[in-house]
Amino acid sequence: MIEPRTLKGFRDHLPAQALVRERILDVARRVYRSYGFAPIDTPALEYLEILTGKGSEETDKQLYRFKDHGGRDVGMRFDLTVPFARFAAQHVHELGLPFKRYHLAAVWRGENTQRGRYREFMQCDFDTIGTTSPVADLEMVLVVHDLLAAIGVERFTIRINDRRVLAGILGRLGLADKATTVLRSLDKLGKATPEAVAAELAGHGVTAEAVAALLEMAGLRGTAGDVLARLGGLVGDSEPGRAGVAALAAIVAGGRDAGVADGRIAVDPSIARGLDYYTGIVLESFLDDLPTLGSICSGGRYDNLAGLYTKQPLPGVGASLGIDRLLAGLEELHGVATVETPAEVFLVHFDERHLGDYLRIAAALRAAGMAVEFFPEAKKVGQQLKLAAKRGFPAAVVIGSDEFAAGTAQFKNLATQQSVTIDWHGDLHVLVDAIHSLLEAAKQRPPASVSRAASDS
Amino acid sequence: MIEPRTLKGFRDHLPAQALVRERILDVARRVYRSYGFAPIDTPALEYLEILTGKGSEETDKQLYRFKDHGGRDVGMRFDLTVPFARFAAQHVHELGLPFKRYHLAAVWRGENTQRGRYREFMQCDFDTIGTTSPVADLEMVLVVHDLLAAIGVERFTIRINDRRVLAGILGRLGLADKATTVLRSLDKLGKATPEAVAAELAGHGVTAEAVAALLEMAGLRGTAGDVLARLGGLVGDSEPGRAGVAALAAIVAGGRDAGVADGRIAVDPSIARGLDYYTGIVLESFLDDLPTLGSICSGGRYDNLAGLYTKQPLPGVGASLGIDRLLAGLEELHGVATVETPAEVFLVHFDERHLGDYLRIAAALRAAGMAVEFFPEAKKVGQQLKLAAKRGFPAAVVIGSDEFAAGTAQFKNLATQQSVTIDWHGDLHVLVDAIHSLLEAAKQRPPASVSRAASDS
Repeated sequence: MIEPRTLKGFRDHLPAQALVRERILDVARRVYRSYGFAPIDTPALEYLEILTGKGSEETDKQLYRFKDHGGRDVGMRFDLTVPFARFAAQHVHELGLPFKRYHLAAVWRGENTQRGRYREFMQCDFDTIGTTSPVADLEMVLVVHDLLAAIGVERFTIRINDRRVLAGILGRLGLADKATTVLRSLDKLGKATPEAVAAELAGHGVTAEAVAALLEMAGLRGTAGDVLARLGGLVGDSEPGRAGVAALAAIVAGGRDAGVADGRIAVDPSIARGLDYYTGIVLESFLDDLPTLGSICSGGRYDNLAGLYTKQPLPGVGASLGIDRLLAGLEELHGVATVETPAEVFLVHFDERHLGDYLRIAAALRAAGMAVEFFPEAKKVGQQLKLAAKRGFPAAVVIGSDEFAAGTAQFKNLATQQSVTIDWHGDLHVLVDAIHSLLEAAKQRPPASVSRAASDS
Repeated sequence: MIEPRTLKGFRDHLPAQALVRERILDVARRVYRSYGFAPIDTPALEYLEILTGKGSEETDKQLYRFKDHGGRDVGMRFDLTVPFARFAAQHVHELGLPFKRYHLAAVWRGENTQRGRYREFMQCDFDTIGTTSPVADLEMVLVVHDLLAAIGVERFTIRINDRRVLAGILGRLGLADKATTVLRSLDKLGKATPEAVAAELAGHGVTAEAVAALLEMAGLRGTAGDVLARLGGLVGDSEPGRAGVAALAAIVAGGRDAGVADGRIAVDPSIARGLDYYTGIVLESFLDDLPTLGSICSGGRYDNLAGLYTKQPLPGVGASLGIDRLLAGLEELHGVATVETPAEVFLVHFDERHLGDYLRIAAALRAAGMAVEFFPEAKKVGQQLKLAAKRGFPAAVVIGSDEFAAGTAQFKNLATQQSVTIDWHGDLHVLVDAIHSLLEAAKQRPPASVSRAASDS
């Protein structure tokens, strides 16, 4: 007998988790599509040379790599950006520009699992390439907004900054050549105290005056208008700095035009992100009720996606939803999902002699858009209802021989345990309509034990 | 510069193909869910010992296997059945029985690509385990029916047989000990002539009389009632044979109860399938207009899913949609998909000064359920419309400065190139309603160059 087990860092998704995950992926697809982003897919395996050296030294070390049956060196993708760069370089003439794609797929990293990381996880990327238009930047912010709203997150903030603002301020402080070091220190501000960061900066030879200016900048908070006015002062007449401030102001104004609620887009000069990659707007987003979770959706603008594979410059802008982190956050806020079925109606198998009737009823309910599980065996009704309740069905329908004879049916709300008798007089339409109405009413009041994320679906 | 290329046997999915594929996966999810099948997922990588020896010698040879960072022998899954067996053995107590799951995921096989096979492909499995109820068998047939119908296949036939019928007939012919050899020969009947199969059977020492009976059985065609009556004669008083014939009769009757059109479920005694695995009903399904394509959805009943990992017997029944084969078939019948965008409305970016207006209009269209691509740059209108037409948008909306001043808009049907002027007098509701109606009308008459599969979505 072989022990059934999964590899360290890998997970099975049981129905309760898989349902929540599928719902969020579904929402992501819908929102991405609503802006014209088109789906693509790329292979899990790539030539090793496509993958190595494109991430960090760390991702190189974490690569799952081996020789395939033909002796080729291959690797499993560790993100969706590198495969997209290869894809874009290979197909750009077929695709046309600008090109907007989304890609929802698993990636693999042989990470140290002690940090609570998984070795297989999902990424949900969307990008617009082939344009430097600020409209594409704005659209990234709007997509992130619509995505989090559609998932059902009630309180979140999208924090934006522009790398040119940082560059401008560093230039004015005479720190342009120390940009990477300085920004890496500032990036620690969420986790470390301002004092610790100040000490680190001083250690790098930054003057006390410059340290004060940097911490002032990173600490700026308030309405977008206030922060932008202060940033305008800090960048002075630096050209990139002014361009960055103007771009941020345009995003804030555009968000208002598109109907985003005030305050959901915040200008936060402490957001820096992947310094070597991003060149314009950068974005992070946070659950207001769980800010320590970190950013659940991040991205920004870059100058050139695929310089390693093509001479054609491909500027772009895009972001990625961290679905595992978001799910962890929703679980912490709203509890663990307990619904284990995608179906809404559990049709009890009461009497084998009525199999034909049950089949007709189930088919009619499905034709009316309801998902129905018909129990395969005529086991004891109590046993069937217990399983249905455990799995989180909102409702069960019981029709035994007596009910068939009387033209009635029992509709059971499994959350409240209340029953209603339906008089359908053998008329399938009447039965289907009644079940539909009662089900809609039952779903209005989901049981307390069901997580928001699952019950919203 | 690194050459951007994919590995042999691996494919990129560009938007036109990815859209068709996503639509079919979406339909599969919806139909599986409508019967109460719940999603699960398992890792791409498993311990090698979980995977080896569970398929055939061929799949063992095709396994992508390597040592991971911890020196563990691991392999990439080559199907979804073996991971499901491991999953079921590991989690059966949490899941409860009967358990119905679906699993849509990629699998990998280092196959010989000369046969036109891919090394990475998608499987779409659904199974009910933990019950021997014939209702679960029937439900498999109904799910396959609803799935193909929902995908939009107009003419298809689900061919069913029962392994017990075959066993009964072989027993009566004194061939029980030669079952595997005989059935392997009979399985060639689609591709080889009856004469060639007869010669092969004779070579295995089957008497002329038995050969004649076997070919008669395999050749039985006609209405389900006729075929069942003839099979009843052939199985005589064999107990498994009679059970098999009765089970097939129950499926045919159940299909009728559930509203399946006559003839869509056919009893075909030549269907044998994976001899060592299936023990009851077996199923294959074919496009009537392209029977040479082979079965696009196949499955059956098995006695024990996970005997290698647990002592608990887990009988089950399930099937799998061959999405690559189905897509190839739909392409052959209806042409290649040419729609490259999931969006319906292309909003022309005419005048940068009206950016705020465009954003408001796009947001209102999205709120009304329409997917809208707003072009990021105020390029020449002709250039924008050309891209929109190439990508297969059904419609474009043009509102320039003059139109804004006059409170009008141009709605362009990109298939017919006809334009309609909308008078909206600056009232966003009027504009959105008008675009919605015109779009619905435009979608009624898709352009001829668009494949069914894509335009149905």
